[in-house]
Amino acid sequence: MKIIAELRLKAKELTNLNNILALLQWDQEVMMPPAATNDRAAQFSSLSTIIHKKITDPALGNLLRQAEEYTGEDLPPQDRALVRILKREHLHNSKLPEEFVADFARLTSESLPAWVAARKQGDFKIFLPYLEKIVAMSRQKTDYLGYEEHPYDALLDLYEEGLTSSQLTAIFNNLQPELTELVQRRGIAPSAEVDAFPFPPIAEKDQIAFSEKMLAEIGYDFSRGRQDVSPHPFTTSIGHNDRRVTNRYRPDSLEFIFCALHEGGHALYEQGIDEGYAGTPLDEGVSLGIHESQSRLWENIVGRSQLFWKHYFPMLQQCIPDPFQDIDFYDFIKHINKIQPGPIRVEADEVSYNLHIIVRFELEKELLAGSVQVKELPALWHEKYLRYLGLEIDSDANGVLQDIHWAHSSLGYFPTYTIGNLAAAQIWHSYCLYDTDYKQTLQHGNLAKIRQWLTENIYCHGAVFPPAQLLQQVCNETLNPKSFIEYLRNKPEFDL
Amino acid sequence: MKIIAELRLKAKELTNLNNILALLQWDQEVMMPPAATNDRAAQFSSLSTIIHKKITDPALGNLLRQAEEYTGEDLPPQDRALVRILKREHLHNSKLPEEFVADFARLTSESLPAWVAARKQGDFKIFLPYLEKIVAMSRQKTDYLGYEEHPYDALLDLYEEGLTSSQLTAIFNNLQPELTELVQRRGIAPSAEVDAFPFPPIAEKDQIAFSEKMLAEIGYDFSRGRQDVSPHPFTTSIGHNDRRVTNRYRPDSLEFIFCALHEGGHALYEQGIDEGYAGTPLDEGVSLGIHESQSRLWENIVGRSQLFWKHYFPMLQQCIPDPFQDIDFYDFIKHINKIQPGPIRVEADEVSYNLHIIVRFELEKELLAGSVQVKELPALWHEKYLRYLGLEIDSDANGVLQDIHWAHSSLGYFPTYTIGNLAAAQIWHSYCLYDTDYKQTLQHGNLAKIRQWLTENIYCHGAVFPPAQLLQQVCNETLNPKSFIEYLRNKPEFDL
Repeated sequence: MKIIAELRLKAKELTNLNNILALLQWDQEVMMPPAATNDRAAQFSSLSTIIHKKITDPALGNLLRQAEEYTGEDLPPQDRALVRILKREHLHNSKLPEEFVADFARLTSESLPAWVAARKQGDFKIFLPYLEKIVAMSRQKTDYLGYEEHPYDALLDLYEEGLTSSQLTAIFNNLQPELTELVQRRGIAPSAEVDAFPFPPIAEKDQIAFSEKMLAEIGYDFSRGRQDVSPHPFTTSIGHNDRRVTNRYRPDSLEFIFCALHEGGHALYEQGIDEGYAGTPLDEGVSLGIHESQSRLWENIVGRSQLFWKHYFPMLQQCIPDPFQDIDFYDFIKHINKIQPGPIRVEADEVSYNLHIIVRFELEKELLAGSVQVKELPALWHEKYLRYLGLEIDSDANGVLQDIHWAHSSLGYFPTYTIGNLAAAQIWHSYCLYDTDYKQTLQHGNLAKIRQWLTENIYCHGAVFPPAQLLQQVCNETLNPKSFIEYLRNKPEFDL
Repeated sequence: MKIIAELRLKAKELTNLNNILALLQWDQEVMMPPAATNDRAAQFSSLSTIIHKKITDPALGNLLRQAEEYTGEDLPPQDRALVRILKREHLHNSKLPEEFVADFARLTSESLPAWVAARKQGDFKIFLPYLEKIVAMSRQKTDYLGYEEHPYDALLDLYEEGLTSSQLTAIFNNLQPELTELVQRRGIAPSAEVDAFPFPPIAEKDQIAFSEKMLAEIGYDFSRGRQDVSPHPFTTSIGHNDRRVTNRYRPDSLEFIFCALHEGGHALYEQGIDEGYAGTPLDEGVSLGIHESQSRLWENIVGRSQLFWKHYFPMLQQCIPDPFQDIDFYDFIKHINKIQPGPIRVEADEVSYNLHIIVRFELEKELLAGSVQVKELPALWHEKYLRYLGLEIDSDANGVLQDIHWAHSSLGYFPTYTIGNLAAAQIWHSYCLYDTDYKQTLQHGNLAKIRQWLTENIYCHGAVFPPAQLLQQVCNETLNPKSFIEYLRNKPEFDL
């Protein structure tokens, strides 16, 4: 038990330092004056080096090996989880040689401007040599990290503990034809001219006020967080009682509402973690996929439902009379549930979004296996978009070059978005078994009931249970697309 | 030279970590959600411990000793300064045993609530036992740090390198009768009923806009900083290109203007430091006194002058027509230069402010020498306020309990405020010798000329020259009250 106490001490220091790193990041995105980029990079570098030394410390490795001898039976789940998470971190960091990490960081920072230029000029050739190196180094990284079946598994595990590409392939192979069919049957044709925003513009101060109201309604605790503006909305944890969200406000978009619900969902997860886990690595969501399930549940399943807006549309009209007094309820519901396939992932609807992810997953998997070359990407991209979404991609800027992720060397990350959608539907299905009056619950805006169930079943546990185990506990099944497909098939809003 | 390169590397890391500490502090004052206090305290503790280990590292001590062998002749001033500053930091931190530092920190955190309660109830007895311990530990601290003449010198040196209490005593003994006489002759009687704010209220958004304008006018670079709100305005450096200020806005006060000029003065100093010193401990103001000279110069000498407002009052009227369109220029000038002694330091005017400081200095000096006991403080406070300011103090809450400094264990800090006022007048005197047309300069709002001279003579050097040497270079004399007394005696605004 002395070992566990020692591990807790080390974990506490690492948690504090990682929270400081999160503050540096938050401040850079939200507050930092523009000229301070180099100062901040230097601060990141100094602090990251210190954290890296601490997490790869062989003394920590020894302590973890000793602790594992106990973790079999006697330890409470939270101590087992502490060992599990610290060991993951220790191994991930120790397996990568420092020189390799430095080289990869340098390659990434050189690749970003090349990607920006390539996207701007719609010329894949500018980015090609960089992406080739990124893929080569990513393959090397999978060798360092190790894997059993497929190199992709080594990277996927960084974001979604324990999930493999063969599981994911089976799930996506099942999901893709369903989605393609749904898009064809329920969607507006890709070529149809549709007004992207059919309502009058919305004042920024009204958007801010209503997004704060939405956050408060779902139960976000402003005494333990704050909402600010950033170019790309995000949620971050700077401490157990410091979970911040951001949003952005455009006059001709309802994005502010769904952004508040999305980031609010992430933040509710972290605000709901048991107080006893403060200052430990258990004090965070367990994986990106489970995290995304909580943002998507509030944003899409709850937040785009007609029942939810039965209660909240009058409030929206009261809060922002201009223009919502003059907007028809059903026009609003139709607008927020419109399906129309387009080339850009971040603008995609609830259904076709996942087809964008599947394209990327399939290509990344082949890149890492060496069965596809980087130079083949644009042609394969065109082919898959045509097949899955019925779309002709007009340029690489709107195609293979649209996302920053590869320029950031983040391979293996994309699937977490769809894992989130699938898990959200599974979890919602379980909720509806518990709350058979869920329609009434939504219609009366009784969101506290939903939040409470999620807190007791998911939020409170933090990172104690690995994602697959957590899902099993909550849904009595493994990750699968059945609930999501059923949810989409039966979603009444698509019929309006 | 290899030694200097090694020192630079270590200094760079320390600078980065200290900048991160500054961000933690800034965020706590300005942004942090209220419930996150414990999270932040834990983060401070982890990072401070790391910094303390690095600065007290015996290997750094060895390196510094080796470097000092070279610092005699050959080294350029900035490298000599690097060694000087690192050595100061290394010694200050190494001389205090870790246990003592921890005990003192605990005492401080226990004393703060006692001080709050004592002030609230106007009952010195509540705070007495804590202050006795703080004084006892401060005396112990001076023993650890060491001093030649007077224990006070050990603490004063932490804030104002090289200055001694005997120098300060001579200066203050000279200054005090002059100030007391000025207050009596030019001031409004302490008992006279005067309207604290004789103008209509000012909207917050107007205060924000005009304070930003003032900052821009004096040359504050918003691409390298930002202005936010905090309960106690301050300036902080989070990096070479990240110097932030805060302000506060009350409807019935012009404080926002003078706060912008004051904090702006601090920030101009740091924004004006040579780029070559970025990422080193030279990249900051050299002492609290010199720093305060720059804030007071802009706030008081420039910012309360009639000539300055000849140019800027029309701008103020245009920017905030309600209420300034209806305010008479001379009423405005008289109001911002009103002398009326009162019991509260932070509300004091330009003249009597320094008498508040002298009272505190004299008492602190005797406390540290052991010639005054803590329990005698209230009576001595009454006596000195009557003698120096002609004031009867009605309660300890408005007397000896008013400042947080002692509860913070900050003895030796108060004099830096008056050092700033004296140095500001000396520096302004030198400026006027350089710019004999200084009246025209002010009257035409040619603030860039003033800033440029200050940048070339003071700002650019950062912490390269110790404060006494810097003052000698700029003013050709040591710290003394002559210029300040002359400035106050001849200030035409007092005659309005």
